[in-house]
Amino acid sequence: MTYGVGLRLNRGLVFMSDTRTNAGLDDISTYRKMFNWCVPGDRTITMLTAGNLATTQAVVGLLNERVKAPEDRNPSILEAETMFQVAQLVGTTLREVVALQQGEGQNATSTFNATVIVGGQIGSMEPRMFMVYPEGNFIETSRDTQFLQIGETKYGRPILVRAYDPEMTFEEAVKLLIVSFDSTIKANLSVGMPLDVMVYETDSLTTGIERRIEIADPYFAKVSQGWGHALRDAFEVLPDFSFD
Amino acid sequence: MTYGVGLRLNRGLVFMSDTRTNAGLDDISTYRKMFNWCVPGDRTITMLTAGNLATTQAVVGLLNERVKAPEDRNPSILEAETMFQVAQLVGTTLREVVALQQGEGQNATSTFNATVIVGGQIGSMEPRMFMVYPEGNFIETSRDTQFLQIGETKYGRPILVRAYDPEMTFEEAVKLLIVSFDSTIKANLSVGMPLDVMVYETDSLTTGIERRIEIADPYFAKVSQGWGHALRDAFEVLPDFSFD
Repeated sequence: MTYGVGLRLNRGLVFMSDTRTNAGLDDISTYRKMFNWCVPGDRTITMLTAGNLATTQAVVGLLNERVKAPEDRNPSILEAETMFQVAQLVGTTLREVVALQQGEGQNATSTFNATVIVGGQIGSMEPRMFMVYPEGNFIETSRDTQFLQIGETKYGRPILVRAYDPEMTFEEAVKLLIVSFDSTIKANLSVGMPLDVMVYETDSLTTGIERRIEIADPYFAKVSQGWGHALRDAFEVLPDFSFD
Repeated sequence: MTYGVGLRLNRGLVFMSDTRTNAGLDDISTYRKMFNWCVPGDRTITMLTAGNLATTQAVVGLLNERVKAPEDRNPSILEAETMFQVAQLVGTTLREVVALQQGEGQNATSTFNATVIVGGQIGSMEPRMFMVYPEGNFIETSRDTQFLQIGETKYGRPILVRAYDPEMTFEEAVKLLIVSFDSTIKANLSVGMPLDVMVYETDSLTTGIERRIEIADPYFAKVSQGWGHALRDAFEVLPDFSFD
C-alpha cells in the first residue's frame, strides 16, 4: 500500500506521501510517489499516487510524454485551462492505463487499480485539489471536507479529523501530517519512510517548498516520541471509568 | 462491520464490542455481539463476534444447542477441559457453518465469513484468549501481543499500541477501550453505539462485571470530548516543523 494526504489550507496546499512500495512482503522498495509540474508564474500541479506501481508510473509517464509532445493527442496538463481540466486529463489517462493493462496479456491475481490526488493552481484562479479514482471519475475538496487521503487511510484519520483546521500555518500542517503518518507507519508495514512533503503557498505559482524526511530525521523522531508521551499523558488525565 | 477488542491484563480479561450490524447502508440494526457462558466456580467463557450476522448467530446457536444436549455431537464448551479445547470447538463450529452456507442455495455477493474472539478461564488454569478465523484455525495472545481486535480494527489501533499496559486497572482499561471505540465510531458508520463491556477478574470464575454504554452515557461523552481537547492540546505542545 501507500499513504498519501493532501490538505487544503486557507494559505495554500500541503502534500505528504510515503515512499514504500511492495509486491508481497518479501519484495519492498522505495519509490517516490509525489510528482510536480510547474511553469513558474503560470501554474503548479502536484500529484500523489497510490496503488499499482506499474499503473502509476505509466500515468506519470504518459502525462510527461504529452507535456513534451502535446500536439500528439490530448492537451497536456501544462496547457489545460483549469485545474478541473487537469483532473479530467489525469482521470482519462488513469482509466486508459487501467483498461489497457486489464485487457491484455496474462490475468493477474491483483488488480491494476490506482488512485491519485492532484492539486495545484493555474493563473489567478483559486487553488483546487481532486481525488481521481481508477474509473477516471473524481471528487474535489469542499468547504466541509478539506483534506483527501489515499492508500492506508484509516490509522491516521482520527488525528486529522480532530486536529485539522484550515487556518493552520504550514509548519503546524506538516506537524499534523507527521503525526498522522507516524501512527500509520507504527501500525502497518506497507507504509514506510522516508516521507516526501511539499507546501504550496497560494498565488506563488512556483514549485513550492519540498522536503524529504528521512528515517533518522531528528524532528520526526522528536514528534514521534513526543506524541507517544503526549498521548499517554492526555490519556491519564481523562477520568477513569467507574463500575459503580 | 463491527469493532471488538479483547485485552489481556495481569489482573484479568476485558472485552468490548459495538452493537451495529448492517446489510447495506440502508439496513442497519442493533445486535449484541458479546456472549457469555458461565458455570460459577468452574468456568467462564466470553465470545465477541464480527462478520456475517447469520453466521455468527448460527455459531452461537449451535454452541448453545450443544450445551443443552452435549451427548448429541461434539463436547459442549461447558465440558471442554481447557480453553484451548474451547477455541478448537468454536473453530470447528465456525468452519462448519461457513462451509454449509457457502455450499448450498443461492450464491451471495458477500461472503459468509466471521471472526471470533473467545477468552475465559477454566478451573485453576490461567485465563486465555484466542482469535478464531473463518477457516477454523486460531491464534492466542502472547506476552508480546496481549490484545486482539476484530472488525474495523485500524482507526482504534494506534491508541491501543501506544497506551496499552498489562499492569492497567480495569477502570483504566475500559477508559482505553472507550477512546479506541470513540475514534472508530467518529470515522466509520458501520461501527455504532451502544457498546457492551465485560470485565473478568482472574480466578473469580463468575460472569464478570457487565455494562452497556448507551449513546447518551455521560462518561462516554466526557471521554469523547475530553479526548478531542486533550489531543489538540497535546498536538499544540509538540514543536512545529521548520523549513529552515
